[in-house]
Amino acid sequence: MSIVTATYRVYDPKKDLHKKAESIALGLTIGSWTHLPTLEKKQLEKHKGEVVEVVEEKASDEATRVFGEERTTGLIKIAYPQANFSADIPAILTTIFGKLSLDGEIKLVDVDFEPTLEAAFPGPQVGIESIRSHLSVYDRPLVMSIFKGMIGKDLSEFKQQLLDQLIGGVDIVKDDEILFDNPLTPFTDRVKTGADVLTKVYEQTGERKLYAVNLTGRTFELKEKAKHAVELGASALLFNVFAYGLDVLQALAEDPEINVPIMAHPAVSGALTASPYYGISNKVLLGKLLRLAGADLVLFPSPYGSVAMEKSETLDIADALREKRSINTAFPVPSAGIHPGLTPWLIEDFGIDSVINAGGGIHGHPGGAKAGAKAFRDAVSGVLASKTLAEAAAESPELATALELWGSPK
Amino acid sequence: MSIVTATYRVYDPKKDLHKKAESIALGLTIGSWTHLPTLEKKQLEKHKGEVVEVVEEKASDEATRVFGEERTTGLIKIAYPQANFSADIPAILTTIFGKLSLDGEIKLVDVDFEPTLEAAFPGPQVGIESIRSHLSVYDRPLVMSIFKGMIGKDLSEFKQQLLDQLIGGVDIVKDDEILFDNPLTPFTDRVKTGADVLTKVYEQTGERKLYAVNLTGRTFELKEKAKHAVELGASALLFNVFAYGLDVLQALAEDPEINVPIMAHPAVSGALTASPYYGISNKVLLGKLLRLAGADLVLFPSPYGSVAMEKSETLDIADALREKRSINTAFPVPSAGIHPGLTPWLIEDFGIDSVINAGGGIHGHPGGAKAGAKAFRDAVSGVLASKTLAEAAAESPELATALELWGSPK
Repeated sequence: MSIVTATYRVYDPKKDLHKKAESIALGLTIGSWTHLPTLEKKQLEKHKGEVVEVVEEKASDEATRVFGEERTTGLIKIAYPQANFSADIPAILTTIFGKLSLDGEIKLVDVDFEPTLEAAFPGPQVGIESIRSHLSVYDRPLVMSIFKGMIGKDLSEFKQQLLDQLIGGVDIVKDDEILFDNPLTPFTDRVKTGADVLTKVYEQTGERKLYAVNLTGRTFELKEKAKHAVELGASALLFNVFAYGLDVLQALAEDPEINVPIMAHPAVSGALTASPYYGISNKVLLGKLLRLAGADLVLFPSPYGSVAMEKSETLDIADALREKRSINTAFPVPSAGIHPGLTPWLIEDFGIDSVINAGGGIHGHPGGAKAGAKAFRDAVSGVLASKTLAEAAAESPELATALELWGSPK
Repeated sequence: MSIVTATYRVYDPKKDLHKKAESIALGLTIGSWTHLPTLEKKQLEKHKGEVVEVVEEKASDEATRVFGEERTTGLIKIAYPQANFSADIPAILTTIFGKLSLDGEIKLVDVDFEPTLEAAFPGPQVGIESIRSHLSVYDRPLVMSIFKGMIGKDLSEFKQQLLDQLIGGVDIVKDDEILFDNPLTPFTDRVKTGADVLTKVYEQTGERKLYAVNLTGRTFELKEKAKHAVELGASALLFNVFAYGLDVLQALAEDPEINVPIMAHPAVSGALTASPYYGISNKVLLGKLLRLAGADLVLFPSPYGSVAMEKSETLDIADALREKRSINTAFPVPSAGIHPGLTPWLIEDFGIDSVINAGGGIHGHPGGAKAGAKAFRDAVSGVLASKTLAEAAAESPELATALELWGSPK
């Protein structure tokens, strides 16, 4: 039987995890069991949720402080039969964390789809390997950058910024997630100008690049808009998936005409993930579900900046995006607060199959975005050649300048 | 200038709310301001976010306990110029609570759309008035009930349950939110059977009723599915909007062929609303945004049951759904833990323009669902005639039985 298994961390004021687990397993499937007549039991057997495991944990000091009492804490794992839901994310989310999301202190911390169910989902349609082969970059993390303040700026500024970033050695440039369709830099103009700049850069450097245009607007127009963008030469899409819905991402990924990498932005996701006691873990939301739904690259707050995520959570996301499964792998993109001095940490923590993504760490370089991009590329080369940053900087004035400005924790 | 004003409650470890407010107003719009050249300032002026108000609040004892320190707490109100975003909910959510949702302890507690922007949204297309006139019920709260455990049950069970509930006097019956398309009770069969039962009940009682079928499946198929359902005689739709996206609800509401009431279920919304320190308030999410997007009825946990919401939050939702605006009003539907003994409270708290919604409080009646429905209707009539429940029960054996079983807090 094909099933979804969901794991919850609960903080139970009633101090009975087994009873809580049973009430979830029945309450979210067939309602009741014990007093049913035998015939009905037989009829409902294949719809009944099952308690797979209950593991009591020691209540953390923090949780005890927060609740003002020591609550019975632990992990509850429930299996939901697929007979109960259609094979789509809205039905699965509603089943495993619909009503339950409103039921006190409970966090959805893990989810597992059996292989037959996983097969119903596209996963990344481009994925790490094909992105690498498009860019002909196989042996290092990719380097990505973000436009600087494009709101209120026009197309000539857009073109110049894009060129500066790419010429310096950045592999991917993405729109800011808060840049929507607007009269100064309309969506189709950004797509066309972006494609032109990428061609020019290829002619000049021999390097293929990606520009991720922010796909925005009304849900039911997105597929046509994305297809049109691809026709006009879009090389990648940025998508604020949590302002829409995971199923919308899936539909974009599944469309064979939308055959460019889709980059998922974590905007709004903090509303679902930030609390330790409610909501959904980053591993599930930004890791497992985004990959299943078809994100090729996933941005999330790095553990180094001021808008930071716990390091263990960022590693969980990266693992979920790259662990061996039947679907393609996706690039983790730890973002925010990234500067060249962090390169050794980024590579140590997130490995080669990741994207180093900077905004201020590129544009804030005293030599401009071009020098900022070169500083990152030189830092990456140095680290991969087992040099210290200081050694790498001895051969790169751009990196030396960057280290002088931002330092390095190592 | 048309704008969105967002109000956040922040718990600032850096103890400077004004600085925090400025960083939000600039960071989520044009990035920086002070050091810009005059020409650029002129160019960006209309895109600049503005701090409208900063109100310091006394840190609550609970917050101080939770954070292990007394944080500077307060409300920050920021105005975002509409020049920055397209007039759709995903763009607005990304602007006002995209990156910010990931930025530590901050909760989006209110949002205001200027009238010119509000005009871009449909609001409830049927609304309280038209639902009342369809049902010919003008002077009392509506009574609604939910099927009992339909998973694994077939169409004859569906039909019988629907009939029992409606004949007893319920105005609206809704599917369970975890009932998806399935071989035993397929969507179109539920719609057709539901329509037949409603016709039969009308012939028998002269009363019009509504049956809300759960609209589920893949996002891009929902509009066609809903239109087909309406053609087949669907009288209302139930929609798990937070498993999809607010913009999907809006698209359903805007479609002129989907001209039946849409009932929004709060499944998954707890992941966004439950924490006091992160996410989005119920007033904003279940109140203001659901109404703007076009929900005609909004379910939320009542303040009385075991899966309960704070009473003040439930009242905020109800107010947001019914306050005077340019768009139609929507019915608040406090749900969970409702039995006839709570009727005086429900009417006192939520008024006449609300829906009394019960599951166990109907089906658990010793005389069955029909008697359960009658008990509610008699309780409502009694309360509105200024009787005590005991007085009303003296004339209604069904209500007397219900009160004996569940009691009444009054």
